[in-house]
Amino acid sequence: MAHLLSTSLSVKISSSNRPCGQPLNQVRTTLASSFTIKTSKSPFKRLVSKGDRTRKSCVVLATAAPVSKEVSANPRSGSDESRSDSSKPQRVMVIGGDGYCGWATALHLSNKGYEVAIVDSLVRRLFDHQLGLDSLTPISSIHNRLRCWKAITGKTIELYIGDICDFEFLSETFNSFEPDAVVHFGEQRSAPYSMIDRSRALFTQKNNVIGTLNVLFAIKEFREECHLVKLGTMGEYGTPNIDIEEGYITITHNGRTDTLPYPKQASSFYHLSKVHDSNNIAFTCKAWGIRATDLNQGVVYGVKTDETSMHEQLCNRLDYDGVFGTALNRFCVQAAVGHPLTVYGKGGQTRGYLDIRDTVQCVELAIANPAKPGEFRVFNQFTEQFSVNELAALVTKAGKKLGLDVQTISVPNPRVEAEEHYYNAKHTKLIELGLKPHLLSDSLLDSLLNFAIEFKDRVDTKQIMPSVSWKKIGVKPQTVPAN
Amino acid sequence: MAHLLSTSLSVKISSSNRPCGQPLNQVRTTLASSFTIKTSKSPFKRLVSKGDRTRKSCVVLATAAPVSKEVSANPRSGSDESRSDSSKPQRVMVIGGDGYCGWATALHLSNKGYEVAIVDSLVRRLFDHQLGLDSLTPISSIHNRLRCWKAITGKTIELYIGDICDFEFLSETFNSFEPDAVVHFGEQRSAPYSMIDRSRALFTQKNNVIGTLNVLFAIKEFREECHLVKLGTMGEYGTPNIDIEEGYITITHNGRTDTLPYPKQASSFYHLSKVHDSNNIAFTCKAWGIRATDLNQGVVYGVKTDETSMHEQLCNRLDYDGVFGTALNRFCVQAAVGHPLTVYGKGGQTRGYLDIRDTVQCVELAIANPAKPGEFRVFNQFTEQFSVNELAALVTKAGKKLGLDVQTISVPNPRVEAEEHYYNAKHTKLIELGLKPHLLSDSLLDSLLNFAIEFKDRVDTKQIMPSVSWKKIGVKPQTVPAN
Repeated sequence: MAHLLSTSLSVKISSSNRPCGQPLNQVRTTLASSFTIKTSKSPFKRLVSKGDRTRKSCVVLATAAPVSKEVSANPRSGSDESRSDSSKPQRVMVIGGDGYCGWATALHLSNKGYEVAIVDSLVRRLFDHQLGLDSLTPISSIHNRLRCWKAITGKTIELYIGDICDFEFLSETFNSFEPDAVVHFGEQRSAPYSMIDRSRALFTQKNNVIGTLNVLFAIKEFREECHLVKLGTMGEYGTPNIDIEEGYITITHNGRTDTLPYPKQASSFYHLSKVHDSNNIAFTCKAWGIRATDLNQGVVYGVKTDETSMHEQLCNRLDYDGVFGTALNRFCVQAAVGHPLTVYGKGGQTRGYLDIRDTVQCVELAIANPAKPGEFRVFNQFTEQFSVNELAALVTKAGKKLGLDVQTISVPNPRVEAEEHYYNAKHTKLIELGLKPHLLSDSLLDSLLNFAIEFKDRVDTKQIMPSVSWKKIGVKPQTVPAN
Repeated sequence: MAHLLSTSLSVKISSSNRPCGQPLNQVRTTLASSFTIKTSKSPFKRLVSKGDRTRKSCVVLATAAPVSKEVSANPRSGSDESRSDSSKPQRVMVIGGDGYCGWATALHLSNKGYEVAIVDSLVRRLFDHQLGLDSLTPISSIHNRLRCWKAITGKTIELYIGDICDFEFLSETFNSFEPDAVVHFGEQRSAPYSMIDRSRALFTQKNNVIGTLNVLFAIKEFREECHLVKLGTMGEYGTPNIDIEEGYITITHNGRTDTLPYPKQASSFYHLSKVHDSNNIAFTCKAWGIRATDLNQGVVYGVKTDETSMHEQLCNRLDYDGVFGTALNRFCVQAAVGHPLTVYGKGGQTRGYLDIRDTVQCVELAIANPAKPGEFRVFNQFTEQFSVNELAALVTKAGKKLGLDVQTISVPNPRVEAEEHYYNAKHTKLIELGLKPHLLSDSLLDSLLNFAIEFKDRVDTKQIMPSVSWKKIGVKPQTVPAN
C-alpha cells in the first residue's frame, strides 16, 4: 500500500464565490470555509483520498455558516451490528459522482437521507480540456460543490478522488467508507469518444472493464452484501427486429425452452464495453453470489433536479458538443443559438429517453429495493421512445413558441447504425418499483430551451457538428476531434 | 517506432541436440547451424522482431544439411500485384504459434504450402515457470523448432517475438509480413489461470481483449483485405437448455422474427474474454468491413499431427496439470501414472471435443474459404460430444487393454458449472467445408495412453489435482496455484 501523505488545507472562499445557502442576489459578504484533504504520493492516480481506515468522518469537511436548513439525524449510525441489522441500505458510494448523472444522483441520495461518498478521478473534466470542449453551464469544482451542498443542507458527502482501476485506492475507499450499495457511473461514457482513435478505443474498454472488475473484486473481498447498481445503456441491445426485453428473453427453439441473456448488438467501442461489463457482472453473481442491478439507461436529457437547482454552485453540466452531447440536449442548445438542428442521416433512429430527474429516481429505487444475493437483475431505464426526427419536430415547435426560427439539416451520419428500423423496448420493471416518470412535455422543453438561451453566450458553435467518424477511426492519436 | 538493433548470431548445435532430418537413432555427428535474429532495444516486449521492412526473408534463417526432402516452389512469389491477383490466401500469420494449437497449426499450414509467420511473446512458457508446471513432453525452444522444421522440409517459418498488446510491434509485423490471413491463438487460454487471483483475472481480460483490438486496428489500417481467423471457445455458450447454434439464432418473439447473436453465458474470466472478443470483432465487421471467422473450439485432445511427428524437436506440448491440462489429455496422463481419474463433481458436464489433427484441418479450411468483407462468421469447431463420466469410462476401458488398473474419483468441483444438464451443440459448418473428423476411437486412445506411458517419468503428480477455485479467488496475488 502506498504511504499516504496527509495534507491539511484551509481555504477561504473569495467574494467572487457567492456563499451557499443564501439567496442568489443578496449575499456580498465573504464566508470562511475550511476543508481537509488527504493526498497520496501519487497525484495522478489518487489526487485526494482517505487513507486512515479508523476515521469514519468525511474527507472533505466543509463548515460554512449560515446553514439554510437543519438536517435530520444520520439515518445510519452506531456499530457495524446495527448497520447490518438495518433492512434499508444506508451508505451509498457513487463512483463517477462528479459527472452528469453521477452528480445529480449523489445529491439526490444525500438529500434523501443516505450517507453518500463520491468516488471520482475527475478525468471527465480532463477530457474536456484535452478536446477543447466545455459544458454549456459553468460548473464548480467538486470541492466547491460539496462545500456548497454542506452549507445549504448540512449534509456531508465524502469525497475520494482516485482511479478505480487502481485497486489499492479502491480497497481503501471500500474499507474506509464501507458501502451498502455502490452506484457505478465511473466509466468513459461517450460513444464518439471511444471512436476518436485507437488509443481512446482501447482506453474506453480497458478503463471500463478493469474498473468494473475491480469493483466486483472489492465487493467480494470487503463488502459481500454490498449491492452493485451498475449503469449500462440501452445501446447494448442495438436495434433488433423484435421487442427488446429487460435483460433476458425466453426462447423456444427446436421444442425446448430456456430464458437466456437478451442478445446484444452494441455499435461502438463504448457500448461494447458496457456489454463486456454486463457479462462479467452476470458471471460474478452466479459464481460469487454478488447482488447486482444493471440499469440499461436510455438517452438522458435535462439539467435541473431538485437538488442541483438549489444553488448555482450545484449546477450540473450540460454537454452540447459532438462528442459528449446527447440528442435532445444538443438540439435545445442548437435552437437557442440559431444553429440548425443536426439530424444524423435519415433521422429514423429511435431510442429510449428519460429526464435526468428520472435517472436519480430510478437509481434510488434500485438501491431501496436491492437485488438478492446472486441475482443479476436488469432494468431498462427510460420512460419514452422517440426518433431523432420526432425530437427535432418537438424542439422546432417549442422554439417557435419562444420566437425562435428553428431549422433542421441532415448531416452525414458519423455512426454506423440503422436509420430506419423497428424499435420497441420494454421498460416496466422500474415503473413496478414505483417510478413516476417526468414525461417530455411542452413545459419541460420550454424550460430546457430557456435554460439554453440563458447560457447561449457560452456556446462555442465549433463544437456542435459531429467530429468523429465510426468508419474513419485510425491508429494515429487525435489530439482534437477529427474533422 | 523504436530503433531496432541488428544482431547476428552464429550458433552451433551441440551433439546433445539430434540433427533434424535424420532418423532418431542414427545420428551422432554434430551439425553447424546459423541463424540471424534482429532484436529491438526493448527485450521484454519485443525479444526478436523483424524491423527492416524492405527485407522479405525470414527472421530466423536456419540452414542445416542434410535436408530430408526437397520442397515445392513457394506458392506465392513475385510482386505484390501477383499476390493480390491470387484467389487463394497465401501468407498466414499465426499469432500464438508457439502454443499447443498454434504450433501444430503453423506447421500444418507451412506443410500445405502457405507462407507462415509465427507471432508469439512466448509468455505461455513463462506461465509454466511461474506456476512450477511443465509439459508432459519435452519441448524445444521456438528457435530450435523452426530450425528443425527448415532442416526437415526446407520450409521457412518467419518468427516475430513480441506482444500484440504492443501496437508498435504489431504494426511492424503487419507491414513486414503482409498477411492475407491472421490466425489468432495469441491469448491467455486457460479458465483456471484466469481464476487464480485478481491479477490473473485482469491480465486475462486485458491481454485478450486489447490484443484482439490491436489486431483489428492493424487489419483496418494496414491489410484491409486480410481475413481474421479468431479462436473462440464453445465455453462462450455455457450450457443453455436449448440447442446451441453456430453463432446466431433465429428468434420469433411476440409475432416478429430476427436472427441475432446466440446468447452467451460464459463461466470464467477467460471464457468471458472470448465473449468480449467476439462482440468486438462482430462490431468491426459491421462498422469497418472486416472479414472474420470466429472458431468456437471445443476441448482439444491429442498431441501428434503429421507435422509434429516428423521429429522429436517438433514435438508439441501436452499439459496435464490442473491449470492448463484439458479433460481427456489429463485423464490419459493420470491413467498412465496410476493416478485415479479426477472427475469434477458429478461428471455429467458435457462438452464438444476434437482431435488436434482436426484443429489444424479446421483452421486451414477457414483460411482456404475466407469470410466475405464485412462478414462475421461463426463455426463451432468440434467433432463429438462427451460427458466427463463418458470420457472417464473410455479411458478406463482403454487402460484395461494395456494392463492399467484405472480408478476414478470424484473431487469437489473447483468450478461453478452445472454438473447435469442438456447439451446439444450444432457443428455442421466445418463439415460442409470439407472437414473429415478424426473421431475418438480405441486406437487413438491406445496411442494417447501409450504416449503418456512413454513420458510418465516426467509426470509431477503434484500438478494433477485442481488447484484453483472459482469461489475462493481473492485479491491477493498467488505465486503458485492455490491449494
